[in-house]
Amino acid sequence: MTAFLDELRRGLPELRLLTDDVDRESYRRDETSHFEPGLPLAVALPSSTDEVAAIMRLATAHRVPVVPRGAGSGLSGGSAGVGGALTIALTRMNAIMEIDRANLVAVVQPGVINADLKTAVAAEGLFYAPDPASYEFCSIGGNIGTNAGGLCCVKYGVTRDAVLSLEVVLADGRVIRTGGRNVKDVAGYSLTHLFVGSQGTLGVVTEATLRLRPAPPPKQTMLAFFPTLEAAGHAVASIMAAGLNPCTLELMDQVVIAAVDDWHSLGLDRSAAALLLIESDQPGPAADDELAAAETACTDAGATSVVRATDPMEADWLRQVRRLAYRAMERLGVARMEDVGAPRSRLPDLLMAIERIAAAHELRCGTFGHAGDGNLHPTFVWDRGDEAAEERAHAACEELYRAAIALGGTVTGEHGIGASRRPFLEEQLGSDAVDVMRSIKAALDPLGILNPGKVV
Amino acid sequence: MTAFLDELRRGLPELRLLTDDVDRESYRRDETSHFEPGLPLAVALPSSTDEVAAIMRLATAHRVPVVPRGAGSGLSGGSAGVGGALTIALTRMNAIMEIDRANLVAVVQPGVINADLKTAVAAEGLFYAPDPASYEFCSIGGNIGTNAGGLCCVKYGVTRDAVLSLEVVLADGRVIRTGGRNVKDVAGYSLTHLFVGSQGTLGVVTEATLRLRPAPPPKQTMLAFFPTLEAAGHAVASIMAAGLNPCTLELMDQVVIAAVDDWHSLGLDRSAAALLLIESDQPGPAADDELAAAETACTDAGATSVVRATDPMEADWLRQVRRLAYRAMERLGVARMEDVGAPRSRLPDLLMAIERIAAAHELRCGTFGHAGDGNLHPTFVWDRGDEAAEERAHAACEELYRAAIALGGTVTGEHGIGASRRPFLEEQLGSDAVDVMRSIKAALDPLGILNPGKVV
Repeated sequence: MTAFLDELRRGLPELRLLTDDVDRESYRRDETSHFEPGLPLAVALPSSTDEVAAIMRLATAHRVPVVPRGAGSGLSGGSAGVGGALTIALTRMNAIMEIDRANLVAVVQPGVINADLKTAVAAEGLFYAPDPASYEFCSIGGNIGTNAGGLCCVKYGVTRDAVLSLEVVLADGRVIRTGGRNVKDVAGYSLTHLFVGSQGTLGVVTEATLRLRPAPPPKQTMLAFFPTLEAAGHAVASIMAAGLNPCTLELMDQVVIAAVDDWHSLGLDRSAAALLLIESDQPGPAADDELAAAETACTDAGATSVVRATDPMEADWLRQVRRLAYRAMERLGVARMEDVGAPRSRLPDLLMAIERIAAAHELRCGTFGHAGDGNLHPTFVWDRGDEAAEERAHAACEELYRAAIALGGTVTGEHGIGASRRPFLEEQLGSDAVDVMRSIKAALDPLGILNPGKVV
Repeated sequence: MTAFLDELRRGLPELRLLTDDVDRESYRRDETSHFEPGLPLAVALPSSTDEVAAIMRLATAHRVPVVPRGAGSGLSGGSAGVGGALTIALTRMNAIMEIDRANLVAVVQPGVINADLKTAVAAEGLFYAPDPASYEFCSIGGNIGTNAGGLCCVKYGVTRDAVLSLEVVLADGRVIRTGGRNVKDVAGYSLTHLFVGSQGTLGVVTEATLRLRPAPPPKQTMLAFFPTLEAAGHAVASIMAAGLNPCTLELMDQVVIAAVDDWHSLGLDRSAAALLLIESDQPGPAADDELAAAETACTDAGATSVVRATDPMEADWLRQVRRLAYRAMERLGVARMEDVGAPRSRLPDLLMAIERIAAAHELRCGTFGHAGDGNLHPTFVWDRGDEAAEERAHAACEELYRAAIALGGTVTGEHGIGASRRPFLEEQLGSDAVDVMRSIKAALDPLGILNPGKVV
């Protein structure tokens, strides 16, 4: 280990390399509070692809494991430290290298913050769609690692759908480029799609070519309140079945409504069992038509009230209700947010399973999430220091994963398997499918030095 | 070989197995006329996943290569016969197993014809987007193998974007399932995206869960004629740059216009150097607005005339002009259709490269294709029996591939590397990227029995 660090320093005298205990501690965790990570051997903050390649060559030579890391906002322990491993934080490689209007692409380094990219392309009348809730502080590299989702996936897809090309440093330090600026390209296997979502276990992404869209028209925004969770679930099903294509279709349950209202006194209907945030960005009058159709679907499903924003400020305010959800839950104590999903038609079943499991384990739970995608974030909260509750939450999560799997769903819709959900990968996919993943991992990382203990 | 066939017959007495010379001959070729395939050892037409799995177990035991095949309409030699290999034709596994309205998915066997799926889901008010020109006779399995494109990709994406889940028989006969009905799912590596486009070199697809959409509004249709290819290229660029989102944006050059007009006497403007077919399926008046904006872009780029369809029949007629393109070219002699692509902004350069190369090799060439995607089908034609012309065409294609690569483009936008373009894969992607593909191939097919000599 000392030999490895010495050679790193000698070979890359310009490399920012942190080896102090305090620095190493500060890179130990990502945002996955319930996962206990290891202490990094050291932290490298490279500033170029060449530096990353040189690091990987040395890591291969010394068989030292590495943990690629973006902004550290992950929720699966994917970029959490591994004892004895070098954490490679890509935060300094944060240039937006090009915005190519003609081809509707941006070329960026992995450390670019999602919101910064959104702002930069908006200045050109363009739109980068993926919008994880953490978009103000998460990095594009991390988004690519986890195939991050967000609020507008229901219409615009997930991060994978927005990636056209990657530059990747392989385990042995070779640098490859996948894909290109061609929107259609079937030359060979789609390595781009494989690297997206692989959480640094197959290579280190050092550059990405991302798909942009023309900026959509301004959104029309609406909140609908429901007397039961089931009614909200039915509204979602009937909105999708009616062929509507909202750009937002989000759900919050009563616990979350109250938590948000307690914090910001917004005057929300706290008697409602659930609310839906529904938005349309169809062109011209089509947006009004779409929201009117969604309103009918809500009312038919039993909505007790519907609020339509009359101007952009009011719309922002309604949207804010949803954006505050997780932080409002965090104010209630220790919060463990989960990320289960199910086929859209099973959303009511998933909601009921969550209620049942929380009750069985005597846990407080608030649920919010991407109802239009069938992806929910049940969030268990307990008092700091209540270890018994923490253990009950752990058991509840395991039960929750199994309930999602039983519904034909997934243990993770957008946060990733990372380290924290790894025991459940086989349970969801079967051992043969995971075997195939492991054989791909072994083919690309024969020494097993890329983010060991994560994903597969 | 005899032992293998004997064991196949013994182990699977119900399996339809063709071993006659005439039958084997009839499965030798796909639609890639310029590629010289091998004669299959035999042809199996399984009727279930279990049969495919049993075939693969025996193929592994006897180390006999196999060639998975759909309807045989491929244009890259991907399903062309390999000498001594068992061709597995999946045409009998052609059931549409489920249309799940609530989740907007269809579950199908690989032998389902694309058009049959479109018709079946249309009856439910739904839409299966991918529409290769061969949609009336190509199979979904083949579409998945090649990641097939088509006319509406410019708005709705390619086949890969429409696949949520696959059942795949591995080289050794194990059966795995990838993905599910969840629109968001980040559990493990995306095997679904990897198998799509792998042309039967990684496994045999025996079932697919496909994404449907609500049927879009009826299309508004328009043809625009241009005095130069460059003007048409600029119109395309300015349509995309204006943020329009047409559902069709197709180009035909003068040679193709004349070929179609000669055949069907449609009264097309034969003096035009190019035409664009532009369609919008925006809701309500937005479609008219979109076509009006497209018309402005065309006129500004120098269009000499624009024809708008006033009713669905006229629209069908305009669309037919484009649908006839390839068959019209085939009437002129032996036709070799290529499939190059470039970033959209380089479309004029690609068009000019095609003209230059055809002239340099004294070849007749008509170009049509998916201008909105930067994906063109230059089609060289020569008189039957003119071997010198055929050789010139071969040289012209190699030059064409290099020209596309030099533009940052691709040697194949939607037809596949298959067997015919294999020498150019490394030239496009670099040897390290192809090494990674080969290591994945070796991991999934260690004996090299899955469609040998194809893709990597």
